[in-house]
Amino acid sequence: IAKEVAKLLEMKAQLGEDEGKHKFVLKTPKGTRDYGPKQMAIRERAFSAIISCFKRHGAEVIDTPVFELKETLTGKYGEDSKLIYDLKDQGGELLSLRYDLTVPFARYLAMNKITNIKRYHIAKVYRRDNPAMTRGRYREFYQCDFDIAGQFDPMIPDAECLKIVHEILSDLQLGDFVIKVNDRRILDGMFAVCGVPDSKFRTICSSVDKLDKVPWEEVRSEMVGEKGLSPEAADRIGEYVQLHGGLDLIERLLQDPKLSQNKLAKEGLGDMKLLFEYLTLFGITGKISFDLSLARGLDYYTGVIFEAVLLHQENEHVEEPVSVGSVAGGGRYDGLVGMFDPKGRKVPCVGVSIGIERIFSILEQRLEASEEKIRTTETQVLVASAQKKLLEERLKLISELWDAGIKAEMLYKKNPKLLNQLQYCEDTGIPLVAIVGEQELKDGVVKLRIVATREEVNVRRESLVEEIRIRTSQC
Amino acid sequence: IAKEVAKLLEMKAQLGEDEGKHKFVLKTPKGTRDYGPKQMAIRERAFSAIISCFKRHGAEVIDTPVFELKETLTGKYGEDSKLIYDLKDQGGELLSLRYDLTVPFARYLAMNKITNIKRYHIAKVYRRDNPAMTRGRYREFYQCDFDIAGQFDPMIPDAECLKIVHEILSDLQLGDFVIKVNDRRILDGMFAVCGVPDSKFRTICSSVDKLDKVPWEEVRSEMVGEKGLSPEAADRIGEYVQLHGGLDLIERLLQDPKLSQNKLAKEGLGDMKLLFEYLTLFGITGKISFDLSLARGLDYYTGVIFEAVLLHQENEHVEEPVSVGSVAGGGRYDGLVGMFDPKGRKVPCVGVSIGIERIFSILEQRLEASEEKIRTTETQVLVASAQKKLLEERLKLISELWDAGIKAEMLYKKNPKLLNQLQYCEDTGIPLVAIVGEQELKDGVVKLRIVATREEVNVRRESLVEEIRIRTSQC
Repeated sequence: IAKEVAKLLEMKAQLGEDEGKHKFVLKTPKGTRDYGPKQMAIRERAFSAIISCFKRHGAEVIDTPVFELKETLTGKYGEDSKLIYDLKDQGGELLSLRYDLTVPFARYLAMNKITNIKRYHIAKVYRRDNPAMTRGRYREFYQCDFDIAGQFDPMIPDAECLKIVHEILSDLQLGDFVIKVNDRRILDGMFAVCGVPDSKFRTICSSVDKLDKVPWEEVRSEMVGEKGLSPEAADRIGEYVQLHGGLDLIERLLQDPKLSQNKLAKEGLGDMKLLFEYLTLFGITGKISFDLSLARGLDYYTGVIFEAVLLHQENEHVEEPVSVGSVAGGGRYDGLVGMFDPKGRKVPCVGVSIGIERIFSILEQRLEASEEKIRTTETQVLVASAQKKLLEERLKLISELWDAGIKAEMLYKKNPKLLNQLQYCEDTGIPLVAIVGEQELKDGVVKLRIVATREEVNVRRESLVEEIRIRTSQC
Repeated sequence: IAKEVAKLLEMKAQLGEDEGKHKFVLKTPKGTRDYGPKQMAIRERAFSAIISCFKRHGAEVIDTPVFELKETLTGKYGEDSKLIYDLKDQGGELLSLRYDLTVPFARYLAMNKITNIKRYHIAKVYRRDNPAMTRGRYREFYQCDFDIAGQFDPMIPDAECLKIVHEILSDLQLGDFVIKVNDRRILDGMFAVCGVPDSKFRTICSSVDKLDKVPWEEVRSEMVGEKGLSPEAADRIGEYVQLHGGLDLIERLLQDPKLSQNKLAKEGLGDMKLLFEYLTLFGITGKISFDLSLARGLDYYTGVIFEAVLLHQENEHVEEPVSVGSVAGGGRYDGLVGMFDPKGRKVPCVGVSIGIERIFSILEQRLEASEEKIRTTETQVLVASAQKKLLEERLKLISELWDAGIKAEMLYKKNPKLLNQLQYCEDTGIPLVAIVGEQELKDGVVKLRIVATREEVNVRRESLVEEIRIRTSQC
């Protein structure tokens, strides 16, 4: 019996080992995903619209490493710092994956003593957040940032950032949207006149930031219960944060007996008025809402802040449009570069970040619904053969086409069937087939087949490149 | 005295603290760098040439996360595994930064059960190597990979990979180059007939891999001294590895009394012959060298391997061109996807990786030497004003231009001097200036100035967009 048990145990151990070998998990890390060819095609469409806009506004482009020294990121993100990915200490410097593109940008400006630049940067950032992938929330995701750094006359660059958001969201045709605008100085002034102690500004600010997700009653009880704010102060805040509007509201608040006495609020409201004047000249105030409930989480903002949300008309009978979430945000951060400068020299900055993942989700869903067939290659012509033993002729012809800049493919088989070659074109959307056959070789021609119409024409070999160019209208 | 000492100590402590605060290191992590606008312009030129080529060959594009599960990378890179960056264990999965794009590609294929794809992937990879940044060796660097996966007739996709390398290096005009080709089966066969024990194949292979950097004598003493190979075996290897040539050499080795008896070597040589036939049809054998000293470090290769090196003619009097290092490499890896498949199903693959950093270095140095002025924006027109108080008019005009798709900038000042506005165009290469002035506004025109010629023409406001398009020949 002991012998049998030993045998069985040995077998079990072997089995265990084998299981271990095969229990290998075939997946991408939590909160991340691959982009297949179809998703890439959608992604490149969206990027192309965004980059066009950034270039239209005269931006240069920069890139920074995916990781930074850990200390570069320290103290920039407030409560969100816990979401930063650290690298393992393998000897040498302590590193973290970038959390956004703004802090690396500020580090870049300080390091290179740049005081004046307009740049964009499109790259992935990393947050150890709870992913909600169906709604486009990932741990690895793209940000598309446009920022203007430099000492300029007030609100001109700020207005341009809002114009950019307006152009991109219009161009991508994502449906109706609104861009909420506020100012950190107005928020701070409001907290002051409502009786919030200075020390509680920031924590009350992050309570206000939740108003787009939870109702006022909950936010109020957090302020009073958890954060120890007096119920009177909370109620005063409650009155302000329900206000939203345009120039009229700004004018009203500039007359507000309490706010108008506060220096910060007055400054902020004055600039907000100027901003709306510029936005009027841009003709975009229809989509802009001055909204006192907009707070934004990050620590580094010092002036104007804004956030674009898509409005989703669930169905025609619903009166109030439902927000499906933020797709862009940004603001002014005049102090961040100074945090990196050894002498604390300030470089005022304002910028916008387009959150592309949610936009991808929408474009992806729309494409699936539309049943539009999206091409994932740009191949113009398939080099095919009608008979066997023509591999060498196909190789010669395709090489000529490649060298002439024509986008060409062939099947990697010695003797493919013509039907399979035609089917490949149908499947992948290749519009033309260049068919070599024995007769054609003798005659010095190639048979060009137009896949859509099944039309076939003989083209002299020396005219083939030109003919393909014309047929695919490539200039 | 005690009091004074305490005071001083306190002062010192404060000083220390302050120092600590400012001793903050303003840098990017070791082995990484930022790309400024000029570098980005060069980078985009190189990428554009590479992507055009990949698309010309009908490739789709994919993307994968920057990190993978640690176990995905385990056991794929041999000795180089120690260079992998691990992420800190912050709870959850153990992650590592990708070391190349090939292993993530294989994981992607296995995970999605794809058995047939031609794709490219351009992304950064990470290696904790000793950086040599002036020679373009970084810890964070781009790879541009093109791979063909699928069961096809022999050497057709392999030949296309070499054609691609040839096209890209020619297109980028990096000077003369050679693409060395070998086959893992020929190497293994060679080791066998030279009397290398099976168990030493891999370690002797990595010795051979050093031959492009150190002379044979050193490699030989490593083989015999460190790795315990018999001097006779080493000498036999020494005879083979100095061989390089073309079809003639392949024919000779097919007749070699020892090699021709080895099954693996014979297979490899047969395929090499076929490969050269295809390369002859592509007209590129002039730059291809069948080189028995080419080994390549990575474990996963199973067939053809290749590496492109730039040849640098130091000066006219040097007879032998000097190699300035590898800029592309690749090969066949038929077993890698099977390592990820639960049932071990194989997907044969062959691919090439273009190492872009060294190419950047060369293009960068060349650009600096040439004093060519490279533009970092695409702005077509600066909206300027000739007098004060015209900010609103500039904002209105620039908004019209942006909405019409014109790339336009303005200075972010209320009342900029005309001279400063013109200087900005000179500095940044903007070709046109649209000047609004009081008289022009009255007349319904805009003064368009051509920066290069200083010519000025009045253009009716409604024709301005068209005129700018024509002048900047944008189609």
